Amino acid sequence: MTAPLRLGIAGLGTVGTGVVKIVRKHRETLAARTGQPIEITAVSARSKSRDRGIPLSDYAWEDDPVALATRDDVDVFVELIGGEDGPAKAAVEAALAAGKDVVTANKAMLAIHGQPLAELAEVNTRVLRYEAAVAGGIPVIKALIEGLAGNEITRVMGVMNGSCNYILTRMEASGLSYQEIFAEADGLGYLEADPQLDVGGIDAAHKLAILSSIAFGTQVNFDGIALEGIERVSVEDIQQAADMGYKIKLLGVTQMTARGLEQSMSPCLVPATSPLGQLEGGTNTIVIEGDSIGQVVLRGPGAGEGPTASAVMADVIDIARGNRLATFGQPATELTAAKVAHSARPAAYYLRLALQDKPGALAKVATALGDAGVSIDRMRQYGHEAPTAPVLIVTHKTTRDALNTALAQLPTTNVVAADPVALRIEDL
Amino acid sequence: MTAPLRLGIAGLGTVGTGVVKIVRKHRETLAARTGQPIEITAVSARSKSRDRGIPLSDYAWEDDPVALATRDDVDVFVELIGGEDGPAKAAVEAALAAGKDVVTANKAMLAIHGQPLAELAEVNTRVLRYEAAVAGGIPVIKALIEGLAGNEITRVMGVMNGSCNYILTRMEASGLSYQEIFAEADGLGYLEADPQLDVGGIDAAHKLAILSSIAFGTQVNFDGIALEGIERVSVEDIQQAADMGYKIKLLGVTQMTARGLEQSMSPCLVPATSPLGQLEGGTNTIVIEGDSIGQVVLRGPGAGEGPTASAVMADVIDIARGNRLATFGQPATELTAAKVAHSARPAAYYLRLALQDKPGALAKVATALGDAGVSIDRMRQYGHEAPTAPVLIVTHKTTRDALNTALAQLPTTNVVAADPVALRIEDL
Repeated sequence: MTAPLRLGIAGLGTVGTGVVKIVRKHRETLAARTGQPIEITAVSARSKSRDRGIPLSDYAWEDDPVALATRDDVDVFVELIGGEDGPAKAAVEAALAAGKDVVTANKAMLAIHGQPLAELAEVNTRVLRYEAAVAGGIPVIKALIEGLAGNEITRVMGVMNGSCNYILTRMEASGLSYQEIFAEADGLGYLEADPQLDVGGIDAAHKLAILSSIAFGTQVNFDGIALEGIERVSVEDIQQAADMGYKIKLLGVTQMTARGLEQSMSPCLVPATSPLGQLEGGTNTIVIEGDSIGQVVLRGPGAGEGPTASAVMADVIDIARGNRLATFGQPATELTAAKVAHSARPAAYYLRLALQDKPGALAKVATALGDAGVSIDRMRQYGHEAPTAPVLIVTHKTTRDALNTALAQLPTTNVVAADPVALRIEDL
Repeated sequence: MTAPLRLGIAGLGTVGTGVVKIVRKHRETLAARTGQPIEITAVSARSKSRDRGIPLSDYAWEDDPVALATRDDVDVFVELIGGEDGPAKAAVEAALAAGKDVVTANKAMLAIHGQPLAELAEVNTRVLRYEAAVAGGIPVIKALIEGLAGNEITRVMGVMNGSCNYILTRMEASGLSYQEIFAEADGLGYLEADPQLDVGGIDAAHKLAILSSIAFGTQVNFDGIALEGIERVSVEDIQQAADMGYKIKLLGVTQMTARGLEQSMSPCLVPATSPLGQLEGGTNTIVIEGDSIGQVVLRGPGAGEGPTASAVMADVIDIARGNRLATFGQPATELTAAKVAHSARPAAYYLRLALQDKPGALAKVATALGDAGVSIDRMRQYGHEAPTAPVLIVTHKTTRDALNTALAQLPTTNVVAADPVALRIEDL
């Protein structure tokens, strides 16, 4: 048996605590699987005194994660602090510069600073691994970098924010409004400290940006994602979608097109019977499509102590076994800056408008759409009591650009009361 | 760029042809992803002249796979001949002894000879990889050995024979008999040359034996699997199961119990709404459960040129990248010979009996079951024209041993016409 692999863990929240538990519980199994004992030598967190239900007295304590990251008795720095900048990034940079391998669960940091961090890792011949950053316990990073590496990846899609999926699933089941279910989810502790990270789609988009980089060999580009949260999805939208055989999911799609890399994270209608449509609550599902494989679907817990710690440990075990991968699957200096495409794939759209009760109002809307080249597949107007009438429209396939042009024209008709809701229909 | 990794491919059927295509098509991507060009130097197959739609003139030809396996210009021997013994095994042994790494899709060989082959690989410090042997293109071996290595695996389940799933799905959709759909599948080329490998559950059991070894650190033990094919499943069984909210699937389950390792491959009733119940046609699904992860579900194509070649290439890429794993995830000499348990987990069973039309017949059956400690949850007898009446019984949870005792008693009642069908109900 060789010398132990020594971990320094910064951040002892849910995930950090879970990692400590696994290292303690599976000491023998981990050594058998890697040929090397895995030990924790030092830890760091905001509060030393807080009771986390795990004994920390065996480990050295550092108040400063940067000090932890550069300790001589640390081989692998495990960053579980979170946040795209600040102490997390400073400590990761310090660790790589000091010749430590790094394992992190920090999707925001990788989505924003992934390229320079990958380059820093490479300059120092260290690895930077982040299985826990995407889809919790699902080994999707490994599947994409390794298991499907013989493929040209053609598309990656997924539902990768459990909180949004919980809210949408609960809205459908209860018939309660977004605002009511949001409050419920917040009360249950299902949302991030800044809930906008969840419901605004930002957290899920961070994950998508990382997947794109691996899938297409491109520099991670969070700003290139067409991003839309779930805040404007109504119970009525969910029910209308259900009538048409669809569910509404916060769906991430990344695809290399002739016009460039198209990444979107937005509420979409997906067939109710599809793997993504069937997904309920906090479970995540990632769909990977490649030229040889066809389609693979990975489904599992997207968050939580055990699943996320399981993913962190997979990275630690890889390092112990000597599996040293480039951060995004190929040398960082070879990753290309992809052209951003936002409207390459035509799709049908679901529109919900609030129409003012004026003669010829519906005709004016249809004309505005038609003038922009958006043709209508189905349209439905409701009986109503309010001064505005809800109108639902399903378009034929169109580009998002054409649709946006049409939507921009609508106010000039003077018959549309509020910003329309426009949701893409993805026939997977 | 370093020297190329040189492949020798034995077997140029569907999968071998697919591998050649990927190596040719993705030359640059593969080099970028591994840091090493991947080249084919020599090939071997039964017929040199057959047109496979790929140019073979760039590669040296060997009639004898053993000669191919030991060539000086081969670094990795890719065995795609098939068959548990014969030339496949001889060539793999020769390759390992000659210091070559080996990639194979041969589930039968690994299920029967996995332990000595893993030991041989280890003695020669070579790797023996086989992602393509289980569930086609789904990267399940990688998920189990690497992605979930931080877990104590508690159970692995799956539908891993597409041909059986096709037959069962088609029987349900068409209402046609097993014999009719078997003939249809055979005519479509969906079945192995020896169809018993498929419908007898043997092929799927080979895969399960491999998964067990990885999951539980045990020596692969194909003979320890309680094995039952789908030949006796009737359309009536499928319809009755549907009435109760179940589908019938050829289900593999492996689980470490207090009494030992319990492995079974048999037609089972699974909830129609579960991931396994929803599976149609040739797609495979593997469910992995671990102490930290909870449950992960992997779904994808279980066979075919592209998917299987994708899995072979994943192994080749791992070798090119220097990811050198023990065959079953830990040193072969440390794998234990698990005690075989066959009846550790109580389950409800679905029984179909042909009852002779005699007074008190049903009571006699109920008594025989009760005497063996098997209690009845539901029972249903049909109106009938034949001299025997179909009777369907759902038992309360019981052990397979108790059920077998009960079933053995049934002939003594002189009222049961033929061997009963007994299918386990798995409430996943």
